[in-house]
Amino acid sequence: MIFRQLFDHTSSTYSYLITSRQGGEALLVDPVLENTARYIQLARELDLRLVLAVDTHIHADHVTGLGQLRKQTGCITAMGEMTQAECLSTRFSDGEKLKLDNVDIQAIYTPGHTDDSYSLVLPGRVLTGDTLLIRGTGRTDFQNGDAGAQYDSLFGRILKLPDETLVYPAHDYNGMTVSTIGEEKSHNPRLQVSDRAAYIVLMDSLVLNDPKMMDVAVPANRKCGLAKAA
Amino acid sequence: MIFRQLFDHTSSTYSYLITSRQGGEALLVDPVLENTARYIQLARELDLRLVLAVDTHIHADHVTGLGQLRKQTGCITAMGEMTQAECLSTRFSDGEKLKLDNVDIQAIYTPGHTDDSYSLVLPGRVLTGDTLLIRGTGRTDFQNGDAGAQYDSLFGRILKLPDETLVYPAHDYNGMTVSTIGEEKSHNPRLQVSDRAAYIVLMDSLVLNDPKMMDVAVPANRKCGLAKAA
Repeated sequence: MIFRQLFDHTSSTYSYLITSRQGGEALLVDPVLENTARYIQLARELDLRLVLAVDTHIHADHVTGLGQLRKQTGCITAMGEMTQAECLSTRFSDGEKLKLDNVDIQAIYTPGHTDDSYSLVLPGRVLTGDTLLIRGTGRTDFQNGDAGAQYDSLFGRILKLPDETLVYPAHDYNGMTVSTIGEEKSHNPRLQVSDRAAYIVLMDSLVLNDPKMMDVAVPANRKCGLAKAA
Repeated sequence: MIFRQLFDHTSSTYSYLITSRQGGEALLVDPVLENTARYIQLARELDLRLVLAVDTHIHADHVTGLGQLRKQTGCITAMGEMTQAECLSTRFSDGEKLKLDNVDIQAIYTPGHTDDSYSLVLPGRVLTGDTLLIRGTGRTDFQNGDAGAQYDSLFGRILKLPDETLVYPAHDYNGMTVSTIGEEKSHNPRLQVSDRAAYIVLMDSLVLNDPKMMDVAVPANRKCGLAKAA
Protein backbone atom coordinates (compact mmCIF):
# COMPACT_ATOMS: atom_id res chain seq x y z
CA MET A 1 0.00 0.00 0.00
CA ILE A 2 1.08 3.57 -0.66
CA PHE A 3 -0.12 5.80 2.16
CA ARG A 4 0.72 9.49 1.93
CA GLN A 5 -0.01 11.92 4.71
CA LEU A 6 -0.17 15.50 3.38
CA PHE A 7 -0.19 18.57 5.61
CA ASP A 8 -1.98 21.89 5.05
CA HIS A 9 -0.03 24.58 6.91
CA THR A 10 -2.88 27.10 7.07
CA SER A 11 -5.47 24.88 8.77
CA SER A 12 -3.13 22.20 10.16
CA THR A 13 -5.19 19.62 8.28
CA TYR A 14 -3.88 16.20 7.35
CA SER A 15 -5.14 14.78 4.09
CA TYR A 16 -4.39 11.23 2.99
CA LEU A 17 -3.67 9.74 -0.42
CA ILE A 18 -4.16 5.97 -0.36
CA THR A 19 -3.65 3.32 -3.02
CA SER A 20 -2.58 -0.30 -3.20
CA ARG A 21 0.27 0.39 -5.63
CA GLN A 22 1.86 2.75 -8.13
CA GLY A 23 -0.44 2.72 -11.15
CA GLY A 24 -3.50 1.81 -9.09
CA GLU A 25 -6.78 3.37 -8.04
CA ALA A 26 -6.44 6.04 -5.37
CA LEU A 27 -8.52 7.58 -2.60
CA LEU A 28 -8.07 11.05 -1.14
CA VAL A 29 -9.38 11.68 2.37
CA ASP A 30 -10.11 15.17 3.71
CA PRO A 31 -8.59 17.16 0.83
CA VAL A 32 -8.15 20.93 1.25
CA LEU A 33 -9.40 23.07 -1.64
CA GLU A 34 -6.27 25.21 -1.94
CA ASN A 35 -4.09 22.11 -2.36
CA THR A 36 -6.10 20.55 -5.18
CA ALA A 37 -3.40 21.09 -7.80
CA ARG A 38 -0.80 19.51 -5.55
CA TYR A 39 -2.91 16.38 -4.99
CA ILE A 40 -3.59 15.99 -8.70
CA GLN A 41 0.10 16.44 -9.51
CA LEU A 42 1.15 13.85 -6.92
CA ALA A 43 -1.45 11.37 -8.21
CA ARG A 44 -0.14 11.95 -11.74
CA GLU A 45 3.49 11.49 -10.69
CA LEU A 46 2.61 8.19 -9.00
CA ASP A 47 0.59 7.18 -12.06
CA LEU A 48 -2.56 6.87 -9.94
CA ARG A 49 -6.16 7.07 -11.02
CA LEU A 50 -8.00 9.14 -8.44
CA VAL A 51 -11.35 7.34 -8.22
CA LEU A 52 -12.67 8.45 -4.84
CA ALA A 53 -12.50 11.50 -2.55
CA VAL A 54 -14.00 11.37 0.93
CA ASP A 55 -14.52 13.84 3.76
CA THR A 56 -14.75 12.30 7.21
CA HIS A 57 -17.23 15.06 8.13
CA ILE A 58 -18.22 18.63 7.19
CA HIS A 59 -15.17 20.62 8.21
CA ALA A 60 -15.49 24.04 9.83
CA ASP A 61 -11.87 25.15 9.48
CA HIS A 62 -11.10 24.76 5.80
CA VAL A 63 -12.94 24.46 2.52
CA THR A 64 -12.99 20.94 1.10
CA GLY A 65 -11.40 19.97 -2.20
CA LEU A 66 -14.09 17.36 -2.96
CA GLY A 67 -15.98 19.37 -5.55
CA GLN A 68 -12.91 20.55 -7.44
CA LEU A 69 -11.39 17.08 -7.42
CA ARG A 70 -14.56 15.62 -8.91
CA LYS A 71 -14.69 18.40 -11.48
CA GLN A 72 -11.06 18.01 -12.50
CA THR A 73 -10.61 14.23 -12.29
CA GLY A 74 -14.10 12.74 -12.52
CA CYS A 75 -13.63 10.95 -9.20
CA ILE A 76 -16.56 9.89 -7.06
CA THR A 77 -17.11 12.06 -3.97
CA ALA A 78 -18.53 10.49 -0.84
CA MET A 79 -19.43 11.19 2.77
CA GLY A 80 -21.51 9.46 5.40
CA GLU A 81 -25.28 9.22 4.97
CA MET A 82 -26.00 11.74 7.76
CA THR A 83 -24.16 14.59 6.08
CA GLN A 84 -25.87 17.78 4.95
CA ALA A 85 -23.50 18.17 2.02
CA GLU A 86 -25.67 18.37 -1.08
CA CYS A 87 -23.24 17.66 -3.83
CA LEU A 88 -21.93 14.13 -3.37
CA SER A 89 -21.80 11.27 -5.87
CA THR A 90 -22.68 8.79 -3.15
CA ARG A 91 -23.06 8.33 0.61
CA PHE A 92 -21.80 5.47 2.74
CA SER A 93 -23.38 4.03 5.86
CA ASP A 94 -21.99 2.55 9.04
CA GLY A 95 -19.92 -0.57 8.38
CA GLU A 96 -19.83 -0.09 4.61
CA LYS A 97 -16.66 -0.94 2.68
CA LEU A 98 -15.39 1.74 0.32
CA LYS A 99 -14.65 0.66 -3.22
CA LEU A 100 -10.93 0.89 -3.94
CA ASP A 101 -8.98 -1.85 -5.75
CA ASN A 102 -7.00 -4.06 -3.38
CA VAL A 103 -7.35 -1.80 -0.34
CA ASP A 104 -9.69 -2.84 2.45
CA ILE A 105 -11.36 0.30 3.89
CA GLN A 106 -14.37 0.25 6.16
CA ALA A 107 -16.32 3.36 7.15
CA ILE A 108 -17.55 3.37 10.74
CA TYR A 109 -19.96 5.96 12.11
CA THR A 110 -18.28 7.90 14.94
CA PRO A 111 -20.43 10.96 15.69
CA GLY A 112 -19.71 13.48 18.42
CA HIS A 113 -17.53 16.18 16.87
CA THR A 114 -20.34 16.53 14.34
CA ASP A 115 -23.33 14.31 13.70
CA ASP A 116 -21.91 13.30 10.32
CA SER A 117 -18.45 12.15 11.49
CA TYR A 118 -17.05 8.87 10.21
CA SER A 119 -13.74 7.12 10.78
CA LEU A 120 -12.06 4.92 8.17
CA VAL A 121 -10.57 1.62 9.27
CA LEU A 122 -7.77 0.11 7.18
CA PRO A 123 -5.56 -2.87 7.98
CA GLY A 124 -3.38 -1.81 10.91
CA ARG A 125 -4.48 1.82 10.90
CA VAL A 126 -7.46 4.09 11.37
CA LEU A 127 -8.23 7.56 10.02
CA THR A 128 -10.10 9.20 12.87
CA GLY A 129 -11.14 12.53 11.35
CA ASP A 130 -11.75 14.97 14.21
CA THR A 131 -13.15 12.34 16.53
CA LEU A 132 -9.84 11.19 18.00
CA LEU A 133 -6.87 13.54 17.71
CA ILE A 134 -3.34 12.89 18.98
CA ARG A 135 -3.54 13.64 22.72
CA GLY A 136 -6.89 15.33 22.11
CA THR A 137 -10.41 14.91 20.75
CA GLY A 138 -12.48 17.08 18.43
CA ARG A 139 -14.59 19.82 20.00
CA THR A 140 -18.28 19.00 20.38
CA ASP A 141 -19.85 22.44 20.74
CA PHE A 142 -21.17 23.13 17.24
CA GLN A 143 -22.55 21.44 14.10
CA ASN A 144 -24.73 19.13 16.22
CA GLY A 145 -21.70 18.07 18.21
CA ASP A 146 -22.51 15.88 21.18
CA ALA A 147 -19.99 14.97 23.89
CA GLY A 148 -21.95 11.91 24.96
CA ALA A 149 -22.10 10.57 21.41
CA GLN A 150 -18.36 11.24 21.08
CA TYR A 151 -17.69 9.26 24.26
CA ASP A 152 -19.62 6.35 22.75
CA SER A 153 -17.73 6.66 19.43
CA LEU A 154 -14.40 6.73 21.24
CA PHE A 155 -14.84 4.14 23.97
CA GLY A 156 -17.41 1.99 22.21
CA ARG A 157 -15.77 1.88 18.79
CA ILE A 158 -12.41 3.49 18.01
CA LEU A 159 -10.61 2.50 21.21
CA LYS A 160 -11.77 -1.10 20.76
CA LEU A 161 -9.38 -1.42 17.82
CA PRO A 162 -6.14 -3.26 18.69
CA ASP A 163 -3.67 -1.22 20.75
CA GLU A 164 -1.02 -1.29 18.01
CA THR A 165 -3.37 0.25 15.40
CA LEU A 166 -1.84 3.43 13.97
CA VAL A 167 -3.98 6.54 14.49
CA TYR A 168 -4.03 9.13 11.71
CA PRO A 169 -6.19 12.17 12.57
CA ALA A 170 -7.50 14.96 10.32
CA HIS A 171 -5.53 17.58 12.25
CA ASP A 172 -2.57 18.10 14.47
CA TYR A 173 -1.43 21.44 15.84
CA ASN A 174 1.68 20.23 17.68
CA GLY A 175 3.81 18.62 15.03
CA MET A 176 2.72 15.03 15.72
CA THR A 177 2.04 12.93 12.63
CA VAL A 178 0.81 9.60 14.01
CA SER A 179 -0.02 7.78 17.22
CA THR A 180 -1.46 4.40 18.22
CA ILE A 181 -4.66 3.34 19.95
CA GLY A 182 -2.68 2.04 22.95
CA GLU A 183 -0.78 5.29 23.29
CA GLU A 184 -3.94 7.39 23.16
CA LYS A 185 -5.70 5.17 25.71
CA SER A 186 -2.82 5.73 28.12
CA HIS A 187 -1.73 9.29 27.42
CA ASN A 188 -4.56 11.24 25.81
CA PRO A 189 -5.70 13.57 28.63
CA ARG A 190 -9.29 13.68 27.30
CA LEU A 191 -9.58 9.91 27.64
CA GLN A 192 -8.58 9.71 31.29
CA VAL A 193 -12.19 10.02 32.47
CA SER A 194 -14.07 7.67 34.75
CA ASP A 195 -17.26 7.48 32.69
CA ARG A 196 -19.52 9.04 30.05
CA ALA A 197 -20.86 11.73 32.41
CA ALA A 198 -17.34 12.84 33.32
CA TYR A 199 -16.44 13.11 29.64
CA ILE A 200 -19.48 15.30 28.99
CA VAL A 201 -18.53 17.55 31.91
CA LEU A 202 -14.96 17.77 30.61
CA MET A 203 -16.02 18.68 27.06
CA ASP A 204 -18.69 21.14 28.24
CA SER A 205 -16.10 22.93 30.39
CA LEU A 206 -13.94 23.84 27.37
CA VAL A 207 -14.04 27.49 26.38
CA LEU A 208 -13.22 27.69 22.69
CA ASN A 209 -13.42 30.39 20.05
CA ASP A 210 -15.20 29.56 16.83
CA PRO A 211 -12.83 28.47 14.05
CA LYS A 212 -11.83 31.53 12.00
CA MET A 213 -13.08 30.00 8.77
CA MET A 214 -16.32 28.58 10.18
CA ASP A 215 -18.79 31.03 8.64
CA VAL A 216 -17.22 30.50 5.24
CA ALA A 217 -16.20 26.85 5.45
CA VAL A 218 -19.40 25.19 6.65
CA PRO A 219 -21.75 26.62 3.99
CA ALA A 220 -19.07 26.14 1.31
CA ASN A 221 -18.53 22.55 2.37
CA ARG A 222 -22.24 21.78 2.10
CA LYS A 223 -21.61 22.50 -1.59
CA CYS A 224 -18.38 20.43 -1.64
CA GLY A 225 -16.27 23.59 -1.83
CA LEU A 226 -17.59 24.60 -5.23
CA ALA A 227 -19.08 27.83 -3.86
CA LYS A 228 -17.33 29.79 -1.16
CA ALA A 229 -20.56 31.29 0.15
CA ALA A 230 -23.96 29.71 0.61
CA MET B 1 10.30 -0.48 14.69
CA ILE B 2 8.63 2.66 15.98
CA PHE B 3 9.39 5.54 13.64
CA ARG B 4 7.93 8.94 14.53
CA GLN B 5 8.20 11.93 12.27
CA LEU B 6 7.77 15.18 14.24
CA PHE B 7 7.22 18.56 12.62
CA ASP B 8 8.42 21.96 13.82
CA HIS B 9 6.03 24.59 12.45
CA THR B 10 8.39 27.55 12.82
CA SER B 11 11.30 26.16 10.79
CA SER B 12 9.42 23.41 8.87
CA THR B 13 11.93 20.94 10.28
CA TYR B 14 11.23 17.21 10.53
CA SER B 15 12.77 15.45 13.49
CA TYR B 16 12.65 11.69 13.91
CA LEU B 17 12.26 9.50 16.96
CA ILE B 18 13.38 5.95 16.22
CA THR B 19 13.37 2.80 18.34
CA SER B 20 12.95 -0.92 17.82
CA ARG B 21 10.06 -1.19 20.30
CA GLN B 22 8.12 0.36 23.16
CA GLY B 23 10.45 0.15 26.17
CA GLY B 24 13.59 0.18 24.01
CA GLU B 25 16.54 2.45 23.32
CA ALA B 26 15.71 5.48 21.20
CA LEU B 27 17.45 7.83 18.79
CA LEU B 28 16.37 11.39 17.98
CA VAL B 29 17.50 12.86 14.67
CA ASP B 30 17.60 16.63 14.02
CA PRO B 31 15.81 17.75 17.20
CA VAL B 32 14.73 21.40 17.46
CA LEU B 33 15.64 23.16 20.73
CA GLU B 34 12.19 24.63 21.37
CA ASN B 35 10.58 21.18 21.17
CA THR B 36 12.88 19.49 23.68
CA ALA B 37 10.17 19.05 26.33
CA ARG B 38 7.84 17.50 23.77
CA TYR B 39 10.46 14.94 22.69
CA ILE B 40 11.24 13.99 26.27
CA GLN B 41 7.55 13.65 27.08
CA LEU B 42 6.92 11.44 24.04
CA ALA B 43 9.91 9.25 24.90
CA ARG B 44 8.59 8.92 28.46
CA GLU B 45 5.08 8.06 27.26
CA LEU B 46 6.48 5.33 25.01
CA ASP B 47 8.69 4.14 27.86
CA LEU B 48 11.80 4.76 25.76
CA ARG B 49 15.33 5.37 26.93
CA LEU B 50 16.75 8.17 24.79
CA VAL B 51 20.35 7.03 24.31
CA LEU B 52 21.41 8.96 21.21
CA ALA B 53 20.69 12.31 19.52
CA VAL B 54 22.12 13.09 16.10
CA ASP B 55 22.17 16.10 13.80
CA THR B 56 22.60 15.28 10.12
CA HIS B 57 24.57 18.54 9.77
CA ILE B 58 24.94 21.99 11.35
CA HIS B 59 21.58 23.59 10.67
CA ALA B 60 21.29 27.26 9.73
CA ASP B 61 17.54 27.66 10.22
CA HIS B 62 16.90 26.45 13.75
CA VAL B 63 18.81 25.88 16.96
CA THR B 64 19.49 22.22 17.70
CA GLY B 65 18.15 20.40 20.75
CA LEU B 66 21.26 18.20 21.01
CA GLY B 67 22.83 19.97 23.99
CA GLN B 68 19.62 20.23 26.01
CA LEU B 69 18.71 16.62 25.32
CA ARG B 70 22.13 15.47 26.56
CA LYS B 71 21.82 17.70 29.62
CA GLN B 72 18.32 16.52 30.48
CA THR B 73 18.52 12.83 29.55
CA GLY B 74 22.21 11.94 29.58
CA CYS B 75 21.99 10.75 25.97
CA ILE B 76 25.02 10.62 23.71
CA THR B 77 25.15 13.39 21.10
CA ALA B 78 26.77 12.68 17.75
CA MET B 79 27.47 14.19 14.35
CA GLY B 80 29.78 13.34 11.47
CA GLU B 81 33.53 13.69 11.91
CA MET B 82 33.77 16.75 9.63
CA THR B 83 31.52 18.90 11.80
CA GLN B 84 32.66 22.08 13.52
CA ALA B 85 30.29 21.50 16.45
CA GLU B 86 32.47 21.49 19.55
CA CYS B 87 30.23 19.87 22.09
CA LEU B 88 29.54 16.31 20.97
CA SER B 89 29.93 13.05 22.88
CA THR B 90 31.19 11.32 19.78
CA ARG B 91 31.55 11.63 16.00
CA PHE B 92 30.80 9.06 13.37
CA SER B 93 32.54 8.50 10.05
CA ASP B 94 31.38 7.43 6.62
CA GLY B 95 29.89 3.94 6.66
CA GLU B 96 29.78 3.67 10.45
CA LYS B 97 26.83 1.96 12.13
CA LEU B 98 25.15 3.90 14.93
CA LYS B 99 24.66 2.05 18.20
CA LEU B 100 20.97 1.52 18.90
CA ASP B 101 19.57 -1.80 20.13
CA ASN B 102 17.95 -3.83 17.36
CA VAL B 103 17.86 -1.03 14.80
CA ASP B 104 20.30 -1.11 11.91
CA ILE B 105 21.39 2.47 11.10
CA GLN B 106 24.33 3.37 8.91
CA ALA B 107 25.69 6.89 8.52
CA ILE B 108 26.83 7.78 5.03
CA TYR B 109 28.74 10.95 4.19
CA THR B 110 26.71 13.06 1.76
CA PRO B 111 28.30 16.53 1.63
CA GLY B 112 27.10 19.36 -0.60
CA HIS B 113 24.52 21.31 1.39
CA THR B 114 27.28 21.65 3.99
CA ASP B 115 30.62 19.91 4.25
CA ASP B 116 29.44 18.04 7.36
CA SER B 117 26.20 16.57 5.94
CA TYR B 118 25.41 12.91 6.57
CA SER B 119 22.44 10.77 5.63
CA LEU B 120 21.22 7.86 7.76
CA VAL B 121 20.30 4.61 6.04
CA LEU B 122 17.82 2.28 7.77
CA PRO B 123 16.16 -0.85 6.39
CA GLY B 124 13.78 0.37 3.67
CA ARG B 125 14.23 4.07 4.38
CA VAL B 126 16.78 6.86 4.38
CA LEU B 127 16.95 10.09 6.36
CA THR B 128 18.47 12.53 3.90
CA GLY B 129 18.95 15.65 6.03
CA ASP B 130 19.08 18.66 3.69
CA THR B 131 20.88 16.77 0.93
CA LEU B 132 17.80 15.37 -0.77
CA LEU B 133 14.48 17.07 -0.11
CA ILE B 134 11.08 16.07 -1.53
CA ARG B 135 11.11 17.53 -5.06
CA GLY B 136 14.12 19.63 -4.08
CA THR B 137 17.68 19.57 -2.77
CA GLY B 138 19.38 21.59 -0.05
CA ARG B 139 20.95 24.91 -1.06
CA THR B 140 24.72 24.82 -1.52
CA ASP B 141 25.66 28.47 -1.23
CA PHE B 142 26.91 28.72 2.37
CA GLN B 143 28.61 26.74 5.15
CA ASN B 144 31.12 25.28 2.68
CA GLY B 145 28.29 24.10 0.48
CA ASP B 146 29.41 22.66 -2.83
CA ALA B 147 27.04 21.87 -5.70
CA GLY B 148 29.51 19.43 -7.30
CA ALA B 149 29.91 17.51 -4.04
CA GLN B 150 26.13 17.43 -3.66
CA TYR B 151 25.74 15.99 -7.15
CA ASP B 152 28.18 13.24 -6.19
CA SER B 153 26.32 12.60 -2.91
CA LEU B 154 23.00 12.43 -4.71
CA PHE B 155 23.83 10.51 -7.87
CA GLY B 156 26.76 8.54 -6.48
CA ARG B 157 25.22 7.52 -3.18
CA ILE B 158 21.64 8.34 -2.18
CA LEU B 159 19.99 7.69 -5.53
CA LYS B 160 21.75 4.31 -5.74
CA LEU B 161 19.51 3.05 -2.94
CA PRO B 162 16.62 0.86 -4.19
CA ASP B 163 13.80 2.80 -5.88
CA GLU B 164 11.26 1.77 -3.23
CA THR B 165 13.34 3.19 -0.35
CA LEU B 166 11.30 5.73 1.62
CA VAL B 167 12.87 9.21 1.73
CA TYR B 168 12.53 11.22 4.95
CA PRO B 169 14.12 14.68 4.69
CA ALA B 170 14.98 17.19 7.44
CA HIS B 171 12.55 19.75 6.00
CA ASP B 172 9.51 20.16 3.89
CA TYR B 173 7.79 23.44 3.11
CA ASN B 174 4.91 22.09 1.04
CA GLY B 175 3.14 19.65 3.32
CA MET B 176 4.81 16.50 1.98
CA THR B 177 5.89 14.01 4.64
CA VAL B 178 7.65 11.26 2.69
CA SER B 179 8.73 10.24 -0.80
CA THR B 180 10.69 7.40 -2.38
CA ILE B 181 14.00 7.24 -4.23
CA GLY B 182 12.22 6.20 -7.45
CA GLU B 183 9.79 9.08 -7.21
CA GLU B 184 12.54 11.62 -6.64
CA LYS B 185 14.62 10.26 -9.52
CA SER B 186 11.65 10.74 -11.85
CA HIS B 187 9.98 13.88 -10.50
CA ASN B 188 12.45 15.97 -8.51
CA PRO B 189 13.14 18.92 -10.84
CA ARG B 190 16.68 19.39 -9.47
CA LEU B 191 17.60 15.86 -10.47
CA GLN B 192 16.59 16.18 -14.12
CA VAL B 193 20.08 17.31 -15.17
CA SER B 194 22.29 15.78 -17.82
CA ASP B 195 25.50 15.77 -15.78
CA ARG B 196 27.51 17.18 -12.87
CA ALA B 197 28.32 20.43 -14.66
CA ALA B 198 24.65 21.07 -15.41
CA TYR B 199 23.77 20.52 -11.75
CA ILE B 200 26.40 23.03 -10.66
CA VAL B 201 25.03 25.60 -13.13
CA LEU B 202 21.51 24.94 -11.85
CA MET B 203 22.45 25.36 -8.19
CA ASP B 204 24.62 28.41 -8.86
CA SER B 205 21.74 30.09 -10.67
CA LEU B 206 19.49 30.05 -7.58
CA VAL B 207 18.99 33.42 -5.93
CA LEU B 208 18.20 32.78 -2.27
CA ASN B 209 18.00 34.95 0.82
CA ASP B 210 19.96 33.85 3.88
CA PRO B 211 17.84 31.87 6.36
CA LYS B 212 16.36 34.28 8.93
CA MET B 213 17.91 32.41 11.83
CA MET B 214 21.33 31.87 10.24
CA ASP B 215 23.37 34.38 12.26
CA VAL B 216 21.95 32.95 15.46
CA ALA B 217 21.59 29.29 14.58
CA VAL B 218 24.99 28.46 13.13
CA PRO B 219 27.09 29.75 16.04
CA ALA B 220 24.59 28.33 18.54
CA ASN B 221 24.65 24.95 16.83
CA ARG B 222 28.44 24.81 17.01
CA LYS B 223 27.77 24.69 20.75
CA CYS B 224 24.94 22.14 20.38
CA GLY B 225 22.34 24.79 21.11
CA LEU B 226 23.51 25.36 24.67
CA ALA B 227 24.39 29.01 23.95
CA LYS B 228 22.25 31.10 21.65
CA ALA B 229 25.16 33.38 20.72
CA ALA B 230 28.77 32.48 20.03
